[in-house]
Amino acid sequence: MIGHQDLAVRTLGPCRIDSPLAERLAARETTQHSVEEDDRILFDDTLSMAGTRGVPVDQLPSLEPGGPRKRIYFDPAKTRVGIVTCGGLCPGLNDVIRGLVLELCRHYGVRRIVGFRNGYRGFIPHYGEDVVDLSPEVVQHIDDEGGTILGTSRGVQDPEEIVDALERLAINILFVIGGDGTIRGAMEVVRVIQERGLKIAVVGVPKTIDNDIPYIDQSFGFQTAMAEATKSIHAASVEARSAPGGVGLVKLMGRHSGFIACYSVLAKDDADYVLIPEVPFALHGERGFLEHLRRRVEDRGHAVVVVAEGAGQEHIEEHEPGRDASGNVRLGDVGRLLRRLITEHLDDAKVENNVRYFDPSYAIRSVPANPYDSAYCLRLAHAAVHAAMAGRTEVIVARRRRRFVHIPMPLAVSRRNHVDPLGDLWMSVLEATGQPVRFE
Amino acid sequence: MIGHQDLAVRTLGPCRIDSPLAERLAARETTQHSVEEDDRILFDDTLSMAGTRGVPVDQLPSLEPGGPRKRIYFDPAKTRVGIVTCGGLCPGLNDVIRGLVLELCRHYGVRRIVGFRNGYRGFIPHYGEDVVDLSPEVVQHIDDEGGTILGTSRGVQDPEEIVDALERLAINILFVIGGDGTIRGAMEVVRVIQERGLKIAVVGVPKTIDNDIPYIDQSFGFQTAMAEATKSIHAASVEARSAPGGVGLVKLMGRHSGFIACYSVLAKDDADYVLIPEVPFALHGERGFLEHLRRRVEDRGHAVVVVAEGAGQEHIEEHEPGRDASGNVRLGDVGRLLRRLITEHLDDAKVENNVRYFDPSYAIRSVPANPYDSAYCLRLAHAAVHAAMAGRTEVIVARRRRRFVHIPMPLAVSRRNHVDPLGDLWMSVLEATGQPVRFE
Amino acid sequence: MIGHQDLAVRTLGPCRIDSPLAERLAARETTQHSVEEDDRILFDDTLSMAGTRGVPVDQLPSLEPGGPRKRIYFDPAKTRVGIVTCGGLCPGLNDVIRGLVLELCRHYGVRRIVGFRNGYRGFIPHYGEDVVDLSPEVVQHIDDEGGTILGTSRGVQDPEEIVDALERLAINILFVIGGDGTIRGAMEVVRVIQERGLKIAVVGVPKTIDNDIPYIDQSFGFQTAMAEATKSIHAASVEARSAPGGVGLVKLMGRHSGFIACYSVLAKDDADYVLIPEVPFALHGERGFLEHLRRRVEDRGHAVVVVAEGAGQEHIEEHEPGRDASGNVRLGDVGRLLRRLITEHLDDAKVENNVRYFDPSYAIRSVPANPYDSAYCLRLAHAAVHAAMAGRTEVIVARRRRRFVHIPMPLAVSRRNHVDPLGDLWMSVLEATGQPVRFE
Amino acid sequence: MIGHQDLAVRTLGPCRIDSPLAERLAARETTQHSVEEDDRILFDDTLSMAGTRGVPVDQLPSLEPGGPRKRIYFDPAKTRVGIVTCGGLCPGLNDVIRGLVLELCRHYGVRRIVGFRNGYRGFIPHYGEDVVDLSPEVVQHIDDEGGTILGTSRGVQDPEEIVDALERLAINILFVIGGDGTIRGAMEVVRVIQERGLKIAVVGVPKTIDNDIPYIDQSFGFQTAMAEATKSIHAASVEARSAPGGVGLVKLMGRHSGFIACYSVLAKDDADYVLIPEVPFALHGERGFLEHLRRRVEDRGHAVVVVAEGAGQEHIEEHEPGRDASGNVRLGDVGRLLRRLITEHLDDAKVENNVRYFDPSYAIRSVPANPYDSAYCLRLAHAAVHAAMAGRTEVIVARRRRRFVHIPMPLAVSRRNHVDPLGDLWMSVLEATGQPVRFE
Repeated sequence: MIGHQDLAVRTLGPCRIDSPLAERLAARETTQHSVEEDDRILFDDTLSMAGTRGVPVDQLPSLEPGGPRKRIYFDPAKTRVGIVTCGGLCPGLNDVIRGLVLELCRHYGVRRIVGFRNGYRGFIPHYGEDVVDLSPEVVQHIDDEGGTILGTSRGVQDPEEIVDALERLAINILFVIGGDGTIRGAMEVVRVIQERGLKIAVVGVPKTIDNDIPYIDQSFGFQTAMAEATKSIHAASVEARSAPGGVGLVKLMGRHSGFIACYSVLAKDDADYVLIPEVPFALHGERGFLEHLRRRVEDRGHAVVVVAEGAGQEHIEEHEPGRDASGNVRLGDVGRLLRRLITEHLDDAKVENNVRYFDPSYAIRSVPANPYDSAYCLRLAHAAVHAAMAGRTEVIVARRRRRFVHIPMPLAVSRRNHVDPLGDLWMSVLEATGQPVRFE
Repeated sequence: MIGHQDLAVRTLGPCRIDSPLAERLAARETTQHSVEEDDRILFDDTLSMAGTRGVPVDQLPSLEPGGPRKRIYFDPAKTRVGIVTCGGLCPGLNDVIRGLVLELCRHYGVRRIVGFRNGYRGFIPHYGEDVVDLSPEVVQHIDDEGGTILGTSRGVQDPEEIVDALERLAINILFVIGGDGTIRGAMEVVRVIQERGLKIAVVGVPKTIDNDIPYIDQSFGFQTAMAEATKSIHAASVEARSAPGGVGLVKLMGRHSGFIACYSVLAKDDADYVLIPEVPFALHGERGFLEHLRRRVEDRGHAVVVVAEGAGQEHIEEHEPGRDASGNVRLGDVGRLLRRLITEHLDDAKVENNVRYFDPSYAIRSVPANPYDSAYCLRLAHAAVHAAMAGRTEVIVARRRRRFVHIPMPLAVSRRNHVDPLGDLWMSVLEATGQPVRFE
Repeated sequence: MIGHQDLAVRTLGPCRIDSPLAERLAARETTQHSVEEDDRILFDDTLSMAGTRGVPVDQLPSLEPGGPRKRIYFDPAKTRVGIVTCGGLCPGLNDVIRGLVLELCRHYGVRRIVGFRNGYRGFIPHYGEDVVDLSPEVVQHIDDEGGTILGTSRGVQDPEEIVDALERLAINILFVIGGDGTIRGAMEVVRVIQERGLKIAVVGVPKTIDNDIPYIDQSFGFQTAMAEATKSIHAASVEARSAPGGVGLVKLMGRHSGFIACYSVLAKDDADYVLIPEVPFALHGERGFLEHLRRRVEDRGHAVVVVAEGAGQEHIEEHEPGRDASGNVRLGDVGRLLRRLITEHLDDAKVENNVRYFDPSYAIRSVPANPYDSAYCLRLAHAAVHAAMAGRTEVIVARRRRRFVHIPMPLAVSRRNHVDPLGDLWMSVLEATGQPVRFE
Repeated sequence: MIGHQDLAVRTLGPCRIDSPLAERLAARETTQHSVEEDDRILFDDTLSMAGTRGVPVDQLPSLEPGGPRKRIYFDPAKTRVGIVTCGGLCPGLNDVIRGLVLELCRHYGVRRIVGFRNGYRGFIPHYGEDVVDLSPEVVQHIDDEGGTILGTSRGVQDPEEIVDALERLAINILFVIGGDGTIRGAMEVVRVIQERGLKIAVVGVPKTIDNDIPYIDQSFGFQTAMAEATKSIHAASVEARSAPGGVGLVKLMGRHSGFIACYSVLAKDDADYVLIPEVPFALHGERGFLEHLRRRVEDRGHAVVVVAEGAGQEHIEEHEPGRDASGNVRLGDVGRLLRRLITEHLDDAKVENNVRYFDPSYAIRSVPANPYDSAYCLRLAHAAVHAAMAGRTEVIVARRRRRFVHIPMPLAVSRRNHVDPLGDLWMSVLEATGQPVRFE
């Protein structure tokens, strides 16, 4: 259960400087949208839990809304800002960088913004990475391209060295764009900043193509990725239907959460099976996946299987636990395993088969953001700038139930967002594919 | 202020039949996602209004969540269903039709579903429209196409004749897909049904490419439409930058609400001016739009103007109030007016100009839904089927703050959703375009 | 009948300088692809004309092939180059500019290249247009955008003033990218250059989105434009089929030649009627277009009409002959005329109708080149550079029967390329639409 | 050297039946486009070979043009037609099937057309494949989908059994859509038909996504495939530029010919290296590929490598010659080999690297034809129908130098079309990538 203390946002100090946006904000004073210091949004709005009955509404856990404040903490003329992108690619990274720079420059009048190259290693001298000056001119058109102009890398670095770099460059605000591991790294940076008594705000924009950051509506780039994924599913379907015993097998992203697999299957109703990390499945036996698939291929002549990369890890015998440079558990390749097992199973059963394997992950994550994600990234970036200028730190900005809010970093990494095997989304997927509730 | 009575959902009677989904639903009993009869979701989750301080949370206005019920009102084996699409085209209509049919047939076992042709006139004998049988086979691939396989038309028809047709065909459930005028028409149908003491459920799926239905997150098709609109804005920008004194002028949908204009401009940062119905603007004078545009063209050599069709109606002198067949106010053509005024103004000022006019509305609204909207339509359709089978009537299904909910029709037509001229969205637009807060 | 003298290419003088490409070319000496000074390609390869029977093949009219020469006329280190784009937009303009600059710089070592702004007016002092320095860095990514980075304008300018500008800037080679009127303008420039005894090469890359330049396979950008046009035809079809009595009317480019209309209809088989400039049609009467359309709408409930902008000019009563700034005949707007006449005719016949009009020309011509056109533009640009460096002048480069060739400018403007009303293409269109051979 | 006898087209007998198209064709009598029995097109139009000097033009080798004849061999009312698709998928297969059926039915009045399932095995009883009835209704919209509605398979079957099936079904015309191996199979079928003294025409539509059929302009689907391939190259470039030491490695189709690799690199200038079967390359040593790549990665921080699947076969040690079911040489996987060698080489050299491997072949070949290919397929199908109805056999239809012609099958399989390592295309590729002429 989330409590008040989990939702409290840290600040560097009181906001005593008039925002350069004040004139515009002045016009907004009478409306509910202006963000006052004590504005809050309920963390949960469901009344199904008995515990909330009769509780005064203002005593329920609530979140701080995002948005511009009338008074801010940092003096724009003297503020120096750093931006870093970490982890795997995701559509929209350049949009976020662009949105941060444009908002800082044009609307707050911040003049010096630098980008650190290739993730956290950009702070560490021995890698010899240059720092990149970011101006409105530099970022104006970067949203037309996928990837990140700053480069990225996996893995955290020594937080002491990172804060050394921040001090050396006199950075006041650091924007960190990355996932779970990146945010944990940022928390270490915050710890060192505090230990040294510095006034540096660290604000995160959560990036996760898997949509597994908790408490937020949907991570940026997710819709773009999901739309790209539908193309691979459809190609797999075309291949499967064009060959005798055609089986199209598509491995999609989703280390811990099968959101991309689920949504893309709902969007393009071509799949017969969806396998996700949240729902274990038996491979063998009469009610196992392989036998079910065999019957489907014999009945219809073809089948399409979509598997999230984190699904079925229990079946990978050669699975050696380990962690990659970002601290993520290293996954065995379920796609290749299934390709082999399906072929063997159908061969053994004397069922003619033509298994086609699709692994489109790099192609999916490197495209530019679609218009929805592009606008979303821009607004997320605006919210991040507002939060940082108001002195918020160790916080991520996110949209929750359609409202931009501040979520403390510790809460954001306290768990992952999962497809609920008992929820509406998975039920719709079962309906769309017609697959059984469980393979056992 | 919305009160409890505004949010109360009408039902035809108690649910006494076990849902065919019961087996699946049984597994879900222990989770918070199962929809119990007394589940509610808070209507508003903002704590900024003094009035709510101290109020017990379960006394606040709340909505009924959508989703499958364990017990239902209609016996699937005996249920006959009708579907009708009304008003202008919108991406996703076929996806909704398809979702309704598949959910009804596959999951509830409903066997007879008919589509009425060309909107409400499909019920009226003198038009001679055939009724279309809708089976899973018929609808399987219709989502690949834009438009609606049922056809559509504007305008309401005599509710008595409509209910005559429902009785003649022994329809138990009518799904109405349409906008404001269509929902008002459906309310008339409900009135006649009640007067005749019939047990026919009328459930709406709100369609509005303008996103102007209130209290909902975003209407289906909106993201697709907005993404298409960005293409026209970009084409206008290319044209404007390729000719001396180039002015690209794009008229987009938006009779009362400028959402498509605002979002598409945020997504593709090519526009210099956005004009929407919610923000009046002066044309003439030193601080008027035309003079500002003249200076921009002289300074930069080109400009891009995006105007929502309902903007600047006050400037259309020949504007004769009237209503179209659906009862919508007939709008003067602000696009053509601006094209003429801009050309004249720049000519008068001896500023060379090449004005290119884009009117992409038909092209935008006729495309198939993008993957996000496609999945969204499917889930909306599922919610509509669950609501109807549980005997809800005079209700629309919608997503509000990311939850599928039931909204009474009278509430859904009580006002329109507007871009808040003091809110975050418009502020982001002003930042993206750099246009002044007001032309006066 | 084309004779030898029509195909002779003018040169500024003998090629006495070793090409910087010589080393690479040396390896090619033994193959048929190396371009020797006396290489020729037959102008026509059809044997159906009695006159050619028995004629020795080397006495038949033939063309000079394009491609790199071992010896060239201009010394790259001392060569200055100008580039200008004229007339309406066409996909691929930036690709051609880019290809010219990259080939000149990287492969010949030319160092100074300038772009003239906004067509021929870029040469004329009183317009005050700046000259743009073009380097590989400037042009590297311009192919991602539609339009032309140089800007463009219609109309010719005084050739004396143009040559003054060439002399002032010490230009040795001028590349002109434009259509019929632009090439005629270039011929005037050549005339003045000759009168002044200058050694300036003028080489054209023919641009015509209508594909109406004669003797060439297909103009650059045509496939991109045709592919875009299919989208509008399909949207018109969706609209027509979604409304009672729906008529989708699409006006496409094609002042004198209906190629875009024909090819886009073949690609996307949605149209019932195609009207092109090459095939006159009667509007009224029992066998006229309007009556045929009425019957089609009554029979099928909808129809799609595609009309090239130059079609049916004989029906535009208010047609006042005149010429636009480029010297093109000004056309009446056949799209608006048809929209009015169709509506009136169906109204008079008491046939319910919903006419939707599409005018996508600006949207079509402003998109970036598709991959095929992009590669084609690059290769055309290479051929243009090779021709110019070898001292060819008053020549355009083109692909004819899949070979890059040099065509003298006078021949290129001697007639237009038309859809042959008795040829295969039009016959395929008649088959695809099912429309009668003639409306009379 | 191609001689007259190589170009002679076999016919089943004299054409004595008036074509149903005669009325339309009558109007065409006076034009050069009507196809007379003795019309010919020169096989080669280059005058560079000394041997042709002075030769009367009508004694040079020439081709029979495609197109409708006034008199035909088969009586449409009594004609039965079979269609089969063989080999790998290629964009446009459904367009060709559709074009054949529509032309046969609508324009010749042929009533019975069947499709054989899954390639040549569709003729062989023991596979138990059903025959599919093909009518205009069945094929009307199949061009919206990739793949082939008939299914396909690799490998030839016993020609005696195939002709048995043709006799059993009383087939008069067999259309075979496939590549090199398929055409060889069709020649065997023709041999058996002749031995049995049957009057069955066998006409091929050449399919090769690699564009390696000789003597033709470009095979259908090639432009679509090449455009798709550019997306993978661009994704590889985005990935490479976003990671330290990023190397994007893309394996494209091209067993014997590197056309897709070459054209897609010209269209999207993102690649640093292109490796094709026609140009051998050294891997190791100072001037080998791996060292060159290492220097590029060290200099620029990233590189993109495009490799055709048939390139570098000499480097695959474990390469065991063998043939797949279609008789094609089985290739070792050069993509995986390069991925391993690049990683090892850079690791050994202590160069940080992130190699990302793309294998998009299935995704490329399963998309629907783009508008250009769609129109091209339709016209090819028309030409095939005209050829078959006029009694031509053992012939493929193709476009050569922009003319539809008949090419005898033996000539079509006599060699492959290759990228000329000394020709324009490869030279443009070297210029675009900047890679050395050879790695040695």
